[in-house]
Amino acid sequence: MMADQTAGTAGEGDVAASKSGQTSNSVQKPKAQKAAQKKTDAPKQGAGKKKMEGAALIGIDVAKEDDFSEWYQQVILKGGMIEFSDVPGCYIFLEETMNIWENIRTFFTTRIAAMGVKSCYFPMFITEDALNREKEHLEGFAAEVAWVDRGGKTKLQKPLAIRPTSETAMYDYYSKRIRSHRDLPLKLNQWNNVVRWEFKHPQPFLRSREFLWQEGHTAHLRKAQAEEEVMQILDHYAAIYEDLLAVPMVKGRKTKNEQFAGADYTTTVEGFIPATGRGIQGGTSHCLGQNFAKMFNIVVEDPDAERKEGQQSEKVHVWQNSWGFTTRSIGVMIMIHSDNKGLVLPPRISETQVIIVPVGITAKTTPEAEKQLYKEIDALVEVLKDAQVWGERVRVQVDDGKESPGYKFNKWELKGCPLRLEFGPKDSEKHQVTYSRRDKPGEKGTIQISELEAQIPEILQTIQKELLAKASEEYASHRKTITSWSDFVPALNAKNVCIIPHCLEGDCEDQIKELSKGNVEGQEVDEKAPSMGAKSLCIPFEQDVYKGLTVGETKCLNPQCEKKAEKWVMFGRSY
Amino acid sequence: MMADQTAGTAGEGDVAASKSGQTSNSVQKPKAQKAAQKKTDAPKQGAGKKKMEGAALIGIDVAKEDDFSEWYQQVILKGGMIEFSDVPGCYIFLEETMNIWENIRTFFTTRIAAMGVKSCYFPMFITEDALNREKEHLEGFAAEVAWVDRGGKTKLQKPLAIRPTSETAMYDYYSKRIRSHRDLPLKLNQWNNVVRWEFKHPQPFLRSREFLWQEGHTAHLRKAQAEEEVMQILDHYAAIYEDLLAVPMVKGRKTKNEQFAGADYTTTVEGFIPATGRGIQGGTSHCLGQNFAKMFNIVVEDPDAERKEGQQSEKVHVWQNSWGFTTRSIGVMIMIHSDNKGLVLPPRISETQVIIVPVGITAKTTPEAEKQLYKEIDALVEVLKDAQVWGERVRVQVDDGKESPGYKFNKWELKGCPLRLEFGPKDSEKHQVTYSRRDKPGEKGTIQISELEAQIPEILQTIQKELLAKASEEYASHRKTITSWSDFVPALNAKNVCIIPHCLEGDCEDQIKELSKGNVEGQEVDEKAPSMGAKSLCIPFEQDVYKGLTVGETKCLNPQCEKKAEKWVMFGRSY
Repeated sequence: MMADQTAGTAGEGDVAASKSGQTSNSVQKPKAQKAAQKKTDAPKQGAGKKKMEGAALIGIDVAKEDDFSEWYQQVILKGGMIEFSDVPGCYIFLEETMNIWENIRTFFTTRIAAMGVKSCYFPMFITEDALNREKEHLEGFAAEVAWVDRGGKTKLQKPLAIRPTSETAMYDYYSKRIRSHRDLPLKLNQWNNVVRWEFKHPQPFLRSREFLWQEGHTAHLRKAQAEEEVMQILDHYAAIYEDLLAVPMVKGRKTKNEQFAGADYTTTVEGFIPATGRGIQGGTSHCLGQNFAKMFNIVVEDPDAERKEGQQSEKVHVWQNSWGFTTRSIGVMIMIHSDNKGLVLPPRISETQVIIVPVGITAKTTPEAEKQLYKEIDALVEVLKDAQVWGERVRVQVDDGKESPGYKFNKWELKGCPLRLEFGPKDSEKHQVTYSRRDKPGEKGTIQISELEAQIPEILQTIQKELLAKASEEYASHRKTITSWSDFVPALNAKNVCIIPHCLEGDCEDQIKELSKGNVEGQEVDEKAPSMGAKSLCIPFEQDVYKGLTVGETKCLNPQCEKKAEKWVMFGRSY
Repeated sequence: MMADQTAGTAGEGDVAASKSGQTSNSVQKPKAQKAAQKKTDAPKQGAGKKKMEGAALIGIDVAKEDDFSEWYQQVILKGGMIEFSDVPGCYIFLEETMNIWENIRTFFTTRIAAMGVKSCYFPMFITEDALNREKEHLEGFAAEVAWVDRGGKTKLQKPLAIRPTSETAMYDYYSKRIRSHRDLPLKLNQWNNVVRWEFKHPQPFLRSREFLWQEGHTAHLRKAQAEEEVMQILDHYAAIYEDLLAVPMVKGRKTKNEQFAGADYTTTVEGFIPATGRGIQGGTSHCLGQNFAKMFNIVVEDPDAERKEGQQSEKVHVWQNSWGFTTRSIGVMIMIHSDNKGLVLPPRISETQVIIVPVGITAKTTPEAEKQLYKEIDALVEVLKDAQVWGERVRVQVDDGKESPGYKFNKWELKGCPLRLEFGPKDSEKHQVTYSRRDKPGEKGTIQISELEAQIPEILQTIQKELLAKASEEYASHRKTITSWSDFVPALNAKNVCIIPHCLEGDCEDQIKELSKGNVEGQEVDEKAPSMGAKSLCIPFEQDVYKGLTVGETKCLNPQCEKKAEKWVMFGRSY
């Protein structure tokens, strides 16, 4: 057991490293531990006719609706996304996770390259002096910085911070590089790992002490240029979620209370986990204004200022942005789409889009007939070689293992493969393939082999579209416009996020958080409801869709607040 | 000043953080400091007719042959590859560096994906317990591990190591994941950052405390499979150097003295820096044998073993490999190709392959004529849009800045752009473009515009080929076969590496290192020759090309060694 759990929240449970389980070091709950140990038991479902050679598979044994956090842990472990490490709060990203992350990386890189953003890499270590340069920024991160005190057997005279983010590491360099307005805009991005030594309850993908991300850092001559870019990046973030991960987002601006330490303002994409009714920050694009430029003295001569004879030219501080997108996004996607059979991966980012499972081979099947069936399956694969979707070849795999079809069905359901094709002697007779969509378990259909090349890309696109549509409907129906305080906490307890008229004051937000903690007297008590208070998630850009707020007239929803409402603000319990 | 320079080699000079220079914190020598501060002086070369608007450019002001390390530092700084950070031994990788690294990444990823290698990401932190599991391995790295002792304001009860490499972090997981021979082979790779807290003299790219690399870690059922892969990977490493970076390598095996801590054996690609006559390790592919498998208990049932009634099945330890390739490669490339005008980048990995510089615009040129010239240049770019080389579009840029042509020539020479096209009114008249290859400064030629699309890819390929050919010749002519001890140190002093008959014993290698330190009595004293002793670089795979070694007869070259020679071994002073 690591014992760096001395912070206040240790009672919530930290990661415990276990050596006993055959699979993974378990976190959170003893229940998970037990589940992992059951792995050598017989499979619960799909034990086929043939005896499985030493292989044992166990499905998800707790329902998403019954115990969400236990369910989530089983889904990511059994789906092969993550494994626990013996370092508290740090997780191993397995192949499917990295495949998705690399998809995101390629997608985003293409878009920012078109904006003129280039790659760089800055050292992971930051000196204490550099970290101290921007006070407000430092205060935001000081509590969660990991410090290196020793190199080899030598104590460092000055400890080094591991980057929690790289503003202070990079902007000293920016001040040297940017000498003239002709050096602007400067647009650099790096893909790297960062460390935030959180003492809150760690959660794979969502809250870990080390995570992967990209961080973009740009400098502009004019405010308008910076502000335009902030929004372009936010659009790209929304596109990663919606186009790749099939996850709906609400775009908006953070309130002062919730914005990035040191920024002028923070824009954000905010997601929603229906199973828990909690909001989740999806990615943030910050307009840093001239705050860091002033601290780091990043100045250029203003090319448009009139220069009078004998006078010094006018110096202006540059306008800076920073923006980051993390591996958290993968956890959001999993929480939203996955079900009680395991992962559900959107086809666009799934490494295997189509799994072909041979069926109908029985004890009576002759070796010749079996061989013939596999030959026909090879022909199916050949047909699908030319099928394209999202500008790439459809990714098809045949599961020719010795396990039973039922075992294989379960395995690929656990792994979230979007589309299963079954092919057996009966299908062969009818020149067809039987298919089953991962997102609609139980439903089956058939496709004529002659239609395969055209139909498969279409079905994959339909799955992608419907996953997003379903999640969007769920998000929309749980985004409640609340205009009476008495409806606020009940709405939260009913797993909603709430759009309320708000004054935008930080103190008022703190009051709302306090007032919405726990269950409220007179309301039905829901044991599972999180006891945390609601915080502001964002000020949605789309204000016009909500009715009943007149600036200067409508009161802030908080009953203890005397101020008038300025904006509709989305509040919720959150991750 | 950081003061973690307490190790024995501090006298050699460590990184000093300077805040005074306008460009960079300088290392190595006070001379470099002065050079950096000269940056605001007038440019030495290429000051054109027009006055430069605030821009000042200074070329490399020390010759490669006069002061190699000062030259190298100027080349990488002024060429925009690297900037110094205020963290000793850590460097900022700028855009051109990251462009090259991403090229390497794509090239290598394509090749290993075809071998079935998948991506993963393991936590950067390693517990002390895990690091201690393989003793020999630990000894190899203990002296250079950076330790995190604090998270936020809390002291960790058990410190965490930052990975110097990930064997011990990954193989505990391998032991859980690999349960059956059907889980083999397991082939995972990660691209990440590692930290080795070296106290030796840091050198950008070549020896830094943090660097980027890929590390592959595979497990196989049989030794033969592991050994086959070791060689495939080594071939890929050689291909990165030779095909992308135009850098020749010698493939071989490390002696026991020099192999990876914990490996059965290490294969390597070894390069050569002609300017210093020193060898340099280019990348290593290790056969770990069953050493780690035994420590981490990674076992499977042998599927081919006969199982007798009532007996336990036979367990076998898996065979493992690990292989790594680092950003050091970029430094090797720079040291070999670059010259006294700055960087020379091989066209295949240069972000800009062709720079077009407008020329012949004088005070007499009318605005209309200038406009016409730029229009014709646009047409040149249009012609080149379809030109392809190495399966991609030729990367062309026009320098339409206000600086003089001479200034631009120098700038793009500093940056290493492989091919410059000049286009002025005289060229226009003759329907031609004047070109100048970066690798042959001073030589000029012309190309008819009608030939441009065909000629440019050809010239780029020629440059790539000739860079490799030139470096290969230099390496070959400085690889001396030495069969008499009296020739050994003089050959080293004459900037050669030496292929000698050797007994392969570690003690003997240590003696040779001792005997070859400094200059030898009776030899001409070369002030610049490194005083270090020669170590074994590799046992070249190609043994047959060297003549005069009969195993069991020929004596080891070391005069203090009584043993017989086993192999030709390449020795040299090295990085």
